[in-house]
Amino acid sequence: MTEIKDVADWWATAVSRVEPGVIELRGRPIQELIGTASFVSVIWLLLRGQPPTPAQERLLEAALVASVDHGPHAPSIAAARIAATCGVGLNNAVATGVNLLGDTHGGAGQQCVELLEEVRRRAAGGADLDAAAAGAVAAWRAHTRYVPGFGHRFHPVDPRQEPLLSLVDGAVAEGTVDGDFLRAGRAVEAVLNRGRSRRIPMNIDGCTAIIYAELGFPAPLARGLFVLGRTVGILAHAWEETGQGRRNKGPMPPAILPTYLT
Amino acid sequence: MTEIKDVADWWATAVSRVEPGVIELRGRPIQELIGTASFVSVIWLLLRGQPPTPAQERLLEAALVASVDHGPHAPSIAAARIAATCGVGLNNAVATGVNLLGDTHGGAGQQCVELLEEVRRRAAGGADLDAAAAGAVAAWRAHTRYVPGFGHRFHPVDPRQEPLLSLVDGAVAEGTVDGDFLRAGRAVEAVLNRGRSRRIPMNIDGCTAIIYAELGFPAPLARGLFVLGRTVGILAHAWEETGQGRRNKGPMPPAILPTYLT
Amino acid sequence: MTEIKDVADWWATAVSRVEPGVIELRGRPIQELIGTASFVSVIWLLLRGQPPTPAQERLLEAALVASVDHGPHAPSIAAARIAATCGVGLNNAVATGVNLLGDTHGGAGQQCVELLEEVRRRAAGGADLDAAAAGAVAAWRAHTRYVPGFGHRFHPVDPRQEPLLSLVDGAVAEGTVDGDFLRAGRAVEAVLNRGRSRRIPMNIDGCTAIIYAELGFPAPLARGLFVLGRTVGILAHAWEETGQGRRNKGPMPPAILPTYLT
Amino acid sequence: MTEIKDVADWWATAVSRVEPGVIELRGRPIQELIGTASFVSVIWLLLRGQPPTPAQERLLEAALVASVDHGPHAPSIAAARIAATCGVGLNNAVATGVNLLGDTHGGAGQQCVELLEEVRRRAAGGADLDAAAAGAVAAWRAHTRYVPGFGHRFHPVDPRQEPLLSLVDGAVAEGTVDGDFLRAGRAVEAVLNRGRSRRIPMNIDGCTAIIYAELGFPAPLARGLFVLGRTVGILAHAWEETGQGRRNKGPMPPAILPTYLT
Repeated sequence: MTEIKDVADWWATAVSRVEPGVIELRGRPIQELIGTASFVSVIWLLLRGQPPTPAQERLLEAALVASVDHGPHAPSIAAARIAATCGVGLNNAVATGVNLLGDTHGGAGQQCVELLEEVRRRAAGGADLDAAAAGAVAAWRAHTRYVPGFGHRFHPVDPRQEPLLSLVDGAVAEGTVDGDFLRAGRAVEAVLNRGRSRRIPMNIDGCTAIIYAELGFPAPLARGLFVLGRTVGILAHAWEETGQGRRNKGPMPPAILPTYLT
Repeated sequence: MTEIKDVADWWATAVSRVEPGVIELRGRPIQELIGTASFVSVIWLLLRGQPPTPAQERLLEAALVASVDHGPHAPSIAAARIAATCGVGLNNAVATGVNLLGDTHGGAGQQCVELLEEVRRRAAGGADLDAAAAGAVAAWRAHTRYVPGFGHRFHPVDPRQEPLLSLVDGAVAEGTVDGDFLRAGRAVEAVLNRGRSRRIPMNIDGCTAIIYAELGFPAPLARGLFVLGRTVGILAHAWEETGQGRRNKGPMPPAILPTYLT
Repeated sequence: MTEIKDVADWWATAVSRVEPGVIELRGRPIQELIGTASFVSVIWLLLRGQPPTPAQERLLEAALVASVDHGPHAPSIAAARIAATCGVGLNNAVATGVNLLGDTHGGAGQQCVELLEEVRRRAAGGADLDAAAAGAVAAWRAHTRYVPGFGHRFHPVDPRQEPLLSLVDGAVAEGTVDGDFLRAGRAVEAVLNRGRSRRIPMNIDGCTAIIYAELGFPAPLARGLFVLGRTVGILAHAWEETGQGRRNKGPMPPAILPTYLT
Repeated sequence: MTEIKDVADWWATAVSRVEPGVIELRGRPIQELIGTASFVSVIWLLLRGQPPTPAQERLLEAALVASVDHGPHAPSIAAARIAATCGVGLNNAVATGVNLLGDTHGGAGQQCVELLEEVRRRAAGGADLDAAAAGAVAAWRAHTRYVPGFGHRFHPVDPRQEPLLSLVDGAVAEGTVDGDFLRAGRAVEAVLNRGRSRRIPMNIDGCTAIIYAELGFPAPLARGLFVLGRTVGILAHAWEETGQGRRNKGPMPPAILPTYLT
């Protein structure tokens, strides 16, 4: 009966199988994972279907660690802290933060992967890498002045860049990844900084986009993995705010509200 | 000037310090964490202020791994998959799932920690552990028929219980944790199953509540850590659904809708 | 077959019936409502099952109008405006605001209805209204120092109180409502202000709680109706913020960030 | 001092002014609106800055009424009902539904306004209306096979179409609106149905898009106003589900789960 098939298909999934007494994640019994598989390898397993190699896992782990927090002024963290003072559950406060990791916030990594894929397409079409990067940047700037993955309003040098790119360099040397996206990213950085005195650095979205793309994750998962990493900081901040005991916290302190209001 | 102090205090945090060129997590420069600290140890660091010992980290890792997914019929996963078909960002779909991990869903671990704390208070007051557990369960049941952390509509035996509790047993033997919450949990399980033929097993919320409480996390973080773990499954399901290409997916397939509607 | 019945029951609803070519709201064809029924009467219809009388509708309308906005420093509005700068849809920004209308923010009206119901129970038990109010307030304060529906950190007199309570007075005079909850609310206000020089006024949550309770809405819908009203302000603010063109807006302006960070 | 100005500007708004004892909405004291202004006129006031004429208000009211609900299988309603069983606040359940009104769900009206604006641009450029509609539809279909505002998987004739378009016809006859978007919408419908036996009807998104555009609302507010209307149904369904007492409701009933799982 086609109906039965349709019903079964409606919620069909390859991620997990759950039956009485049985929980399998991507075909592996959960009791074989608990205590033996690392959290990061299970993240990879669920998203990719197979576990990572140790070298792949190290790269993913570094990118996740680098993403956990950037202080309480990031809109996602600020909103989660505000939420934590409004009488909602800790899960609701975390969801509030995650919900804000949109196209211009947590989505920059996804766009950066798309940009780097465009550089690679142009280079595969015969352009040299520098010309490919220049062309991809120009195409991007025709739509918006923001080049995703580059520039920071805050950090002249982002302290996360050097350790992350060093790890990718090492992974290229060991043959873990190809290095095509790393080279594409550096070509974009060179294009952006040609003839400038004030440097436009590669930022956290750019560095992690390179890692995720080198590891074979499709562009939307660059956002998804950033969400996973940042959820840690969102939770830590929401929890800390809970302990500070404010009620219905506004964005600015009462001390400067009179100035504001008049 | 007190005003300046108030302004500074409004968003004061001990979680992270961000200044131009500087990102510190709990006082540690992020560049020293990237590539050396594991993701799980950074989760602990942000929530607790200090890194875990390796033995503590292993327990936390096991609890997170055990929590990642329980199939597409869990309300949080189902809602995230539905969201993924509505033309919202992957972050919005994940937030939808996280938002649903409320008091009766992801919050059961938090309540179970509270129950186990109550058992311990009663035992510290001089009652033997069995009487303390019986008293705490009776007090709980005066308010609701659900005892958090115990029973499952689905699994007669939860495959996650044995490996998780084995790890706690090992940690007690090694002196990593005291074992007080483990004993309290087993006492509650014994009380619940006295004279019953159909067993009420300890469930995932109960097992992880024991781990989180043994590790010193306050009750609300049992919910918070469950949220972190389950976010992995929510992301994996939302992403898989995206690839299946449905638009505005309803909860039941069209094939059984006519039956439903008439 | 019981299974078919179970399937049909799973999503059964009395709110609406939708079949090919048919949409009924609470049994009324939608084409008979469009152009004839007011928006407020349809809100009532969906929540209550029957349309309101014109006098009931006027009271509900006034309470909704009074709730639409209280400026950008209310946490729900602030979070929605922050969300609007993060590259998410307007619906996601509105959802962010609505999500924050929790127990201490939009939930105060619900708690105030519960408080007034407690006053009425005590008065029905034979206590005079003043003693009933004093008892209910004392019982409430045993748990928290906040008495829901009373007091405002901002307004010595809330400009919404007088017009709202005047309408309830008129509705009592006309026999639209009984006035029991109005009297209970005024008794609570009298108890709170006895012997005080600085007045604790009834606030918007208190005034609208009286209206919703007089109209027969159960306590949780006092929160639900506040959500409906405030959604208008959340939308207006999120939309205005969109037009101001900020990206990833933090809670405090960059001009005072240096002061804050050092 | 520019800093003070920057601080004041950061949360500046024309929507409302709140000072001790004062609440103004778009410059009007709230006490003058309560009891005199209708809820729909205040919605217009907050979004547009000025109140509507009675004829404008009637059109907006009809569009809002038409949008309130389309049954529990709409993803936003389904997710809100699932949320209501998970131990979260009613506001969190409503937010869950609102969050799902994304590009392909509640956003179709916004896209339809954009399509109709494109028809008008082409017609203003000298094309006759039929050619302009054909060109706009062809341009749209180059990107996606879905033409927003037209077609319904469910209703061969949508019962909301006739009463809504009749009201617009009347408003054109009275001079309330120009009718340009109405004519553009009908031209698109004619293009889509040329030579077809099975009709593609204008749907609720199309009809309300025409109304919102005729009334001068920019395209994103077609989504925003749909959100406002549908919030009523989301609330009514979430509240009804709360009363049915399920816990952690899955999308399909247990009765058909065994069939599904094997």
